[in-house]
Amino acid sequence: MRLEPPARAICITGFMGTGKTTVGRLLAQRLGIGFVDTDEVITEGEGRSIPDIFAQHGEEHFRELEARAVASVSAGGPRVISTGGGVLLREENLRALHDAGPIICLNADAETILERTRGDVSRPLLQTEDPAASIRALLSARQACYAPADYQLDASGSPDDVTAALLCMLAEDPRARWLVGNETVIPLDTGTGGYSVTVGRGLLARVGEIVPPSHPGVRAALVTSDRLAPLFAPQVSASLRSGGWEPVLLTVPDGEGSKQLAVLGELWAQMAEAGLDRGSTVFALGGGVIGDLAGFAAATFMRGIDLVHLPTSLLAQVDSSIGGKTAIDLASGKNLVGAFHQPVAVVSDVAALATLPEAELRSGLGEIIKHACCFDAEMFELMERRREAVLEGDPAVREYLVARNCQIKAEVVAEDPHEQGLRAVLNYGHTIGHALERAAPEWGLRHGEVVGAGIVAESRLAVWLGAADEETAARQEALVAAYGLPTSVEGIDEEAAVAAMARDKKIVSGRLRMPIVPAVGTFRLVDDIDIALVRRALVSVLR
Amino acid sequence: MRLEPPARAICITGFMGTGKTTVGRLLAQRLGIGFVDTDEVITEGEGRSIPDIFAQHGEEHFRELEARAVASVSAGGPRVISTGGGVLLREENLRALHDAGPIICLNADAETILERTRGDVSRPLLQTEDPAASIRALLSARQACYAPADYQLDASGSPDDVTAALLCMLAEDPRARWLVGNETVIPLDTGTGGYSVTVGRGLLARVGEIVPPSHPGVRAALVTSDRLAPLFAPQVSASLRSGGWEPVLLTVPDGEGSKQLAVLGELWAQMAEAGLDRGSTVFALGGGVIGDLAGFAAATFMRGIDLVHLPTSLLAQVDSSIGGKTAIDLASGKNLVGAFHQPVAVVSDVAALATLPEAELRSGLGEIIKHACCFDAEMFELMERRREAVLEGDPAVREYLVARNCQIKAEVVAEDPHEQGLRAVLNYGHTIGHALERAAPEWGLRHGEVVGAGIVAESRLAVWLGAADEETAARQEALVAAYGLPTSVEGIDEEAAVAAMARDKKIVSGRLRMPIVPAVGTFRLVDDIDIALVRRALVSVLR
Repeated sequence: MRLEPPARAICITGFMGTGKTTVGRLLAQRLGIGFVDTDEVITEGEGRSIPDIFAQHGEEHFRELEARAVASVSAGGPRVISTGGGVLLREENLRALHDAGPIICLNADAETILERTRGDVSRPLLQTEDPAASIRALLSARQACYAPADYQLDASGSPDDVTAALLCMLAEDPRARWLVGNETVIPLDTGTGGYSVTVGRGLLARVGEIVPPSHPGVRAALVTSDRLAPLFAPQVSASLRSGGWEPVLLTVPDGEGSKQLAVLGELWAQMAEAGLDRGSTVFALGGGVIGDLAGFAAATFMRGIDLVHLPTSLLAQVDSSIGGKTAIDLASGKNLVGAFHQPVAVVSDVAALATLPEAELRSGLGEIIKHACCFDAEMFELMERRREAVLEGDPAVREYLVARNCQIKAEVVAEDPHEQGLRAVLNYGHTIGHALERAAPEWGLRHGEVVGAGIVAESRLAVWLGAADEETAARQEALVAAYGLPTSVEGIDEEAAVAAMARDKKIVSGRLRMPIVPAVGTFRLVDDIDIALVRRALVSVLR
Repeated sequence: MRLEPPARAICITGFMGTGKTTVGRLLAQRLGIGFVDTDEVITEGEGRSIPDIFAQHGEEHFRELEARAVASVSAGGPRVISTGGGVLLREENLRALHDAGPIICLNADAETILERTRGDVSRPLLQTEDPAASIRALLSARQACYAPADYQLDASGSPDDVTAALLCMLAEDPRARWLVGNETVIPLDTGTGGYSVTVGRGLLARVGEIVPPSHPGVRAALVTSDRLAPLFAPQVSASLRSGGWEPVLLTVPDGEGSKQLAVLGELWAQMAEAGLDRGSTVFALGGGVIGDLAGFAAATFMRGIDLVHLPTSLLAQVDSSIGGKTAIDLASGKNLVGAFHQPVAVVSDVAALATLPEAELRSGLGEIIKHACCFDAEMFELMERRREAVLEGDPAVREYLVARNCQIKAEVVAEDPHEQGLRAVLNYGHTIGHALERAAPEWGLRHGEVVGAGIVAESRLAVWLGAADEETAARQEALVAAYGLPTSVEGIDEEAAVAAMARDKKIVSGRLRMPIVPAVGTFRLVDDIDIALVRRALVSVLR
């Protein structure tokens, strides 16, 4: 299953009297999103009732007003849109609504409709001699126009029952599941036994249920930072305990400074003191630093015990928690010591992102843009079109981005668990990005920020290699800029940056192998790239 | 190929004039071992020449004297035995010589023999009217008696050529290769790419040739202790350099105290400073401490770089260098932190064992006895019969023991690289042995020593479980005692030992799974053994 961009709207249509408005309102309420009725939009816009519009200007004029209303409401979101019964008569309405999300048609038989609408003087159709016959005739005439809806739902039950059925249906819909709030489970095969990444909202309070112990009473070391512990540890611990684990909380100081030998030694000692054995599991709760540190501790304690990642930063959710890399820093370099240790599960709660500082969020967006450039033109376009929804934390879009990026990284990692080939593509923007990061002054640049400038530089490199056109590079630069990531950096010494690039641990024995993006959403690995050209690309993003 | 116990002797037989004595002497000289001629033994013993013995007492008496000489010379070794031409006429001679090693028959045609023996008045056969006819007649009569020899070799060339051909032949002989001094290469398959263990003499001076770099100029970190560096580092470094490596020597303090965080951190820093990259290789030169520490550093530096073990202690050669286990100690326990990291090669130079203190040697013998108990009745018998050759450092026997034990461990590790099943058999003697080790007072007990007492205790456990007879346990105890390992230990608190056993990291969630030896050379893994019985076995070796 390939994840699709999330629905912006859910459209409820169907014959009059099938409960479109009632059910639509209930559904919106259950999902916690907005509700809009196209008939109300028209009525308010015109300042007249629909029978009046029909009477004064005829059906054709009404359909024109309706098409404008549909175009307008289907562009926003997230919301439930209830429409008039004849909305799908126009092809352009069908296209606009379908583009926004799934279309559900509510159905009922003529008798039910008559029963429900009896006495409604505002409906012209009912003002005939034999309303039941009129309804049957029109139902039959409209059948073809309702057929293109994505779902047909029997609406003869109570509005509550219909809404419940609708929620079940949407939970299975690849585009709408985000709105329903069901978690997405991404299977990941690493060759040495797979595991799942679960993405959703409110998952930290359900960790013990999502990842149950092999038997009750298994020791769980919940490793987190002293900053995150008060925010998340109580709910995670409670959930672990109720799931049957025997949790113990181990904290380390917050920040990048904890990825070092002394803190690791302290953590190992704490793990031994807490009585962890070979059957115990480490739960790494936090961003990349905690994931790397606690992951390395788990990889090495008793030669390797089980590890569950509970990433709380965007960068950790879309990147560092997937792939089994763990590490600490040495005085002479970052991530110089570590291990490949695949987790037994990853649980990414996007609700945790709400606590994330803006700059940290941008850092994760750098990796997301990288994935979009190399793997997914559709996601790239979504990021172009829906910048505000992404930045303002629209939960559906965030869940989609996290899950889709996990899926992309998971597929790459499954192909190449030990970083021997394909995985090099994940370094897009990083060869130059890392050089910038290492040459940066003491106050430093965030990882995702340098990746932004790295992508800009490496997109130019592809043009110079004759592999991509200017337009492709320009779109990448525009997207990097649109998300507030730097497209160039200042205060960096050119020689220092070039020297830092030469020390890249991905340069094995002097050969430089880099991924390039010939067209948005695709990549190619190129061997033996001329170092002079790479240097020119690097210099082009210095200012 | 299953390794067989080494030859004690190489027997050269054949018709007179085929050059048995000349070639035998040359061969002994080339191999650096002793030489004995049965005819000379008889002549010296009797104080008379062979023609005299033939003349005075007849051939039957001579054959009797010859059989006694063969029995005597074939019991010692290592040596080359040259015999009279008729020695294989007696079945008992054939058996005794074959038991000692391969029998080679030198062949030549009658003309060559006549040419070589012309004018030798001491040979009765030649004192006839037509010596060529006599030779042909006797050659034909003796044919059947030479047939049981292991090899037939054309000896019509010069003695030097015949000796060279003989050396080539012996180098391929599974029993005699030790004497020739060719290294034995044991392939090891770990599921994730195999490697070889090379066992032989003088290999440290040939490391660079046995393990060549992928291309010239690859960085090699030679990690060893400050005690071993002056002993071995110069020759290993020189060999690495001439093989195309670019070696750098990194030393750590000698002794068990180096298996800790601070030394590891120092080693990691040295590796970074030495400019190691992902293509570099760590050569761990030393005993178990160096193998574990440098192995763990290699397993984690840049998330794992290549590792070559150069074990210099018997324990490291037969046990710790095989299997990919690496570790350091924490304050709260031994080997609590580590990784599984298979080496790309192991080179075991048995000549390095000459520098080993007696107690360290015994420590390795504990593991060898363990392997003999569980896997190899023939090796067990060899250790019973040839105790002195083993303890005095007979190079052929040592090479055989190291190679055969590597082979045994390699087979177990190949079946179970991550210690999830079969590998539990390697814990024979260790469940109780480790408990004794951990309960021992500060001055401690050597690992191999506690394994000795552990084997005695666990052999009794098998009897009490009704799985083995008293005789099987008694033979194990006798072998442990014969090699100077303690069959019981004193000064250990019973409660402390039992408590230490309960903390064994191999006891997962309270279940106790142990290997037992139902008969020498065989094993069975038994689940859920009654802890009370294990405790009784442990107590039985306390005094």
